[in-house]
Amino acid sequence: MKHHDIRMRGFASRHDVDEALALLEQRIMPLPSEVIPLDEGLDRVLAEEVAATADVPPFDRSAVDGYGVRARDTFGASDYNPIPLLLKGEVFPGRSLDVTLNANEAVRIMTGAPVPAGADAVVMAEYADEEGGYVNILQSISPFKNVGRIGEDLRTGDVVLRRGRLLRPQDLGVLASMQRTHIAVYRRPTVALIVTGNELAEIHEPLTACKIVDSNSYTLSGLSRRLGALPVRKGIIRDDYDLIKEAVQRASEDVVVVTGGTSVGAEDFAPLIIQELGELLVHGVAMRPSSPVGFGFIRRQPIFLIPGNPVSALVAFDAFVGPTLQRLQGRQPVYPYATIRAKLTRKIASAIGRVDFVRVRITAEGIEPLRITGASILSSTTRADGFVIVDKNSEGLDEGQTVEVYVY
Amino acid sequence: MKHHDIRMRGFASRHDVDEALALLEQRIMPLPSEVIPLDEGLDRVLAEEVAATADVPPFDRSAVDGYGVRARDTFGASDYNPIPLLLKGEVFPGRSLDVTLNANEAVRIMTGAPVPAGADAVVMAEYADEEGGYVNILQSISPFKNVGRIGEDLRTGDVVLRRGRLLRPQDLGVLASMQRTHIAVYRRPTVALIVTGNELAEIHEPLTACKIVDSNSYTLSGLSRRLGALPVRKGIIRDDYDLIKEAVQRASEDVVVVTGGTSVGAEDFAPLIIQELGELLVHGVAMRPSSPVGFGFIRRQPIFLIPGNPVSALVAFDAFVGPTLQRLQGRQPVYPYATIRAKLTRKIASAIGRVDFVRVRITAEGIEPLRITGASILSSTTRADGFVIVDKNSEGLDEGQTVEVYVY
Repeated sequence: MKHHDIRMRGFASRHDVDEALALLEQRIMPLPSEVIPLDEGLDRVLAEEVAATADVPPFDRSAVDGYGVRARDTFGASDYNPIPLLLKGEVFPGRSLDVTLNANEAVRIMTGAPVPAGADAVVMAEYADEEGGYVNILQSISPFKNVGRIGEDLRTGDVVLRRGRLLRPQDLGVLASMQRTHIAVYRRPTVALIVTGNELAEIHEPLTACKIVDSNSYTLSGLSRRLGALPVRKGIIRDDYDLIKEAVQRASEDVVVVTGGTSVGAEDFAPLIIQELGELLVHGVAMRPSSPVGFGFIRRQPIFLIPGNPVSALVAFDAFVGPTLQRLQGRQPVYPYATIRAKLTRKIASAIGRVDFVRVRITAEGIEPLRITGASILSSTTRADGFVIVDKNSEGLDEGQTVEVYVY
Repeated sequence: MKHHDIRMRGFASRHDVDEALALLEQRIMPLPSEVIPLDEGLDRVLAEEVAATADVPPFDRSAVDGYGVRARDTFGASDYNPIPLLLKGEVFPGRSLDVTLNANEAVRIMTGAPVPAGADAVVMAEYADEEGGYVNILQSISPFKNVGRIGEDLRTGDVVLRRGRLLRPQDLGVLASMQRTHIAVYRRPTVALIVTGNELAEIHEPLTACKIVDSNSYTLSGLSRRLGALPVRKGIIRDDYDLIKEAVQRASEDVVVVTGGTSVGAEDFAPLIIQELGELLVHGVAMRPSSPVGFGFIRRQPIFLIPGNPVSALVAFDAFVGPTLQRLQGRQPVYPYATIRAKLTRKIASAIGRVDFVRVRITAEGIEPLRITGASILSSTTRADGFVIVDKNSEGLDEGQTVEVYVY
């Protein structure tokens, strides 16, 4: 048996969470853009400024079913003083009527139909009565009442959506109205998930003693997908310097995530491999859990060292990998969690200089920190409703204090 | 020219938003479940109760790199009183060591490795020094310190995830740890999007006068996708009773959405078609915008009438179609929007008996209701940061009042 000195290496220096994020921010640039069909644009990030190339709508149109009129002809009209106008015809959506309204004339008009020349307003059907070839107007209206004006939605040249916009359903609608069949968006990053550990078994393998199933690649895959990235699971690599190095070198994805073997023990090869192949920028961060997290670059490819224990892996991903995946897509980083504010049911102890990510439950009584024995309790992440962040300048949070919860 | 009486029909009776939702709730049941690979489970809804079929982890394992010991042998140990233990070997993750610790013996042990028989705790490497064939223990620890106990994460039989759970990334991790390669989830509903209107052009068509581009099918498609449904765009149908009826009859999707022609005007055929083919449950709701919204059933297939103007379409979808798509997937309906609370910069007028959905901007000064002239302003939905709901029992909201904003 080969003997290692398991105290051989230590963390050279721990970084603050903020320092580490700043180092990442300096190095991560958006990926190149690609052109996709509009219908695939949901939750993609726009890589162009979109300006209107035509007025929308391109003509004055009726916003209601009713009667197209010259507004001035209705002045003084009411239930007690109906004003009769001569009906000149009927306008339907999608068809124009070759008619020009003169004084005291009207047309029947449907929602969405073009307002004919001469008319400048539409009286709703409820405020009019037809009688013979006339319509009695029962309401005095002002010009452009119930008319959707040309260019009302968008005017030619208006910048409608800016680069970096995370596209919502209604943005797709606006882009459609401008006949944008295709749009330029930032490419989605691919993420290599390299899981290391001799103790790990694949999900379908019969479990022998001393083995546990690799769960991290499923969690990390889901976290990546939620942020629009494309995870590629590379399987389980044994704790072997050369095998892990080979897996890292073969990973041509935009981002590499290595889990397990990221600390400073004898079999923690990943940090050494990054040092050999590239640059290890951060190793060890003043946070809990997940302090052995690290990252570096191999040429321009970011590579993350994510601790193997499932809770640490989740926290480390949210803290560092997530923001990177968002920046690569041209987005400002933001946690993909809604927040709520409520009072703590119990104090949370922390230490100055360290950021704590504390899993909590949301109860009728308030926000309850989860009592757990170790960071490796995967099931605590499913029992938790979210987490609270204890700032590095804080010694902890008091019972009864209002806190912000990031809701899983 | 055929003359219609455009006041011929009216809304028989307007429903309250709550009444309408209650009618839907009574009729919408979850779709059948389907079995999918775990890796596709993100954001799907679990259709089974999942209980642990084995203890996780299946053995006691070390949570740190260090030395496996009998805790009682360390009592009294400190920097000033090192206690030497005989080293019996080294345990690595994924391998077991055929050793039983006797009194005053230890093994070198790595994170994740099985704790050998006889040992009941692990001293971290930092609190130990090797010397010859011995390790000096510098810390007194209690039993099970730094040991991840068998069944600590999950015990056989524990219900881990309940039916109806919207699966998060970490849930996939827990399911993986239980070797669930496949899971039962509710089927995703398909949604037929039938867009009607003679004034509408396809996105790629050259625009002639009087035509505008169909934008609703893009917005509605995005809204459907965001809720996990599978939209199917059926193209633009002319305002013709028989053509629309044929399109509705041909739609075999789980849900049908018809936009345009949903009101009570002469060319508003869709409500009549539902009455002919099935049952029109609601037509006209006390809300703004989108009061002409309606829905019914053709046999068990829900069919929604969504006004053609883009803002109304968005609001009507969020109010009625969205909750339906969630219920069909076994979820309790919830708006897919985060909320924030802040003060209004300007009052919002409303009327008792009506629910208003008011688009707002979030500014440094507070929540600013958007000034817009008509409900048809599609671009207001992209300028808006979200919306505020004015309850039916409210006459409006005051300037300075704290309101909840649903953030788009």
